Amino acid sequence: MTTAAPAPGTDSTADCTPAPAALPIARTEAERLARLLKAVADPTRLQILRLVQNAPAGEVCVCDLTDTLGLRQPTVSHHLKTMTDAGILTREGRGTWAWYTVDQHGLDAIRDILS
Amino acid sequence: MTTAAPAPGTDSTADCTPAPAALPIARTEAERLARLLKAVADPTRLQILRLVQNAPAGEVCVCDLTDTLGLRQPTVSHHLKTMTDAGILTREGRGTWAWYTVDQHGLDAIRDILS
Repeated sequence: MTTAAPAPGTDSTADCTPAPAALPIARTEAERLARLLKAVADPTRLQILRLVQNAPAGEVCVCDLTDTLGLRQPTVSHHLKTMTDAGILTREGRGTWAWYTVDQHGLDAIRDILS
Repeated sequence: MTTAAPAPGTDSTADCTPAPAALPIARTEAERLARLLKAVADPTRLQILRLVQNAPAGEVCVCDLTDTLGLRQPTVSHHLKTMTDAGILTREGRGTWAWYTVDQHGLDAIRDILS
């Protein structure tokens, strides 16, 4: 007994692009990157990020930001905490003030996922 | 009549880093970029973005994504619409299906703000 082979040139999947074999980013990694992106997906936090990046010594304190942003200190501190918790900024306490620098590792992770 | 000049070496702002002169990103531009970032600040949408980027022809349809993501078509279509509305993906209707490619202009805008 023989089994009929498909006629040459026929392809049962011809109407559909082959489905991607597997997810290119694992779910846990995608969740980590989404948290990083959420921390900068806000107009005020984007402005803060750029102000820190542009700062002469690469660091700012809240007292540098309130006037420029036109926001009260607790509001700015809240945004800074969100960005620090997410790994976008790094915080260093010095005397009365805390100073913030860009966490390059966090920013690189976002850029990599978008490239 | 002469006016007394400040003594050399004194600086009334010595206790404080000079405040940044102006916002490096205008508010409307920061809002536009935040909308772009929000459209990818989600684990499923990050996975979709990478699947489109990795697709052999640089384009996918919903039928390519549902099995890989393990999600129903309406859910995937909703994410695709969010990304298209924001300017992360471009949609092209062809026959029964719509095909999605990366909107490089949107992605470049995000990368620029983070660099």
